[in-house]
Amino acid sequence: MKMAELSAVSGVPVATIKFYLRENLLASGERTAPNQADYGPTHVARLRLIRSLIEVGGLAVADAREVLAAIDSDLPLQDTFAIAQRTVSEHIDPDGIDRRALDRIDAVLNGWLVSAENPGRLAAARVIESLDEVGQLDARGWIDRYAHAALLVAEADIDEIAALSDRAAQAQTVVVGTVLGDTLFAALRRAAQEHVSALRYSAVPRATTQTP
Amino acid sequence: MKMAELSAVSGVPVATIKFYLRENLLASGERTAPNQADYGPTHVARLRLIRSLIEVGGLAVADAREVLAAIDSDLPLQDTFAIAQRTVSEHIDPDGIDRRALDRIDAVLNGWLVSAENPGRLAAARVIESLDEVGQLDARGWIDRYAHAALLVAEADIDEIAALSDRAAQAQTVVVGTVLGDTLFAALRRAAQEHVSALRYSAVPRATTQTP
Repeated sequence: MKMAELSAVSGVPVATIKFYLRENLLASGERTAPNQADYGPTHVARLRLIRSLIEVGGLAVADAREVLAAIDSDLPLQDTFAIAQRTVSEHIDPDGIDRRALDRIDAVLNGWLVSAENPGRLAAARVIESLDEVGQLDARGWIDRYAHAALLVAEADIDEIAALSDRAAQAQTVVVGTVLGDTLFAALRRAAQEHVSALRYSAVPRATTQTP
Repeated sequence: MKMAELSAVSGVPVATIKFYLRENLLASGERTAPNQADYGPTHVARLRLIRSLIEVGGLAVADAREVLAAIDSDLPLQDTFAIAQRTVSEHIDPDGIDRRALDRIDAVLNGWLVSAENPGRLAAARVIESLDEVGQLDARGWIDRYAHAALLVAEADIDEIAALSDRAAQAQTVVVGTVLGDTLFAALRRAAQEHVSALRYSAVPRATTQTP
């Protein structure tokens, strides 16, 4: 199909497609005339993936390029995972983090098979450091409860990947799951907060007389 | 204390403090001379809170101003919650979301006390729509497992607030928890992914002979 049809089928404007081509996110079509190229279903699929990562997942163009390259590579799946994790994580210098915050996160992750360089370990330590600074002390196990929920989510993530058999589908699931999973969980957390809050504070039936 | 001491105590550079004063994130000090003001412990505490929300939580200055105003107000706690949720959520037009994605999220949230306008409901629907588009169909209950984990996290969040007695502390916990909780959970998820993945794929004891 021509560029105009690719745009119509994918729902991505022509100018945006041209931008993705220039940025090497999308492979060129097959040249059919000096100023014309032919695109196929792989272009449609790739365009949808790019849009998902950038528009919904909030990835920067350079980061999207990096994770797409990891999908296209034949890197071991663990490496693709590490690239996806790094891409969605801010770089944090461990030397800039308070020792007590690192000790605290290591106590939370006690027994987990996690490397010292895991971007999540450092990001969590920085949040703990910041909570300390604003006087939000973790006296009731809030962080441990988060860690427990994170384990459930990670098990769901790994089950999704394990259920697939071919490497390309696994790699795409790793990347999409890592990027959109954060957005999905944050969204569900807002809905859950409203629900739990309503259950506790607003759920007294109005027409009922309360007995002391 | 003077500006220089406020900077030393809080660890925030003078130029940044002046920026926060101009942006009305931080209240002015008490004027002691034409070009000098006196700052106290409330300024130190507020500076730490601002830094936490902006530098660690990633809030824009305008959004930080809005949630700080909510903390300072005497709005009911539910309203402060709604403001904090809205501030960390992208505005999403429900009319732009596929009907099937909305039906799907409503099936996931079935039985929850959640309003149609909850920013999380719409954001989750958009993720579902995007997952559909890239062919990541939810055949194994991945989203339901996320929702279950989100409930556990929301219960931990509400317990933190319920454990406090005064309104100002509750409001700050609502805001800090909403903003930094997302960052904390995403971080713990990365650590948990490495752990679960290592347990499943790399944890075969090397020195052990495996029997068939």
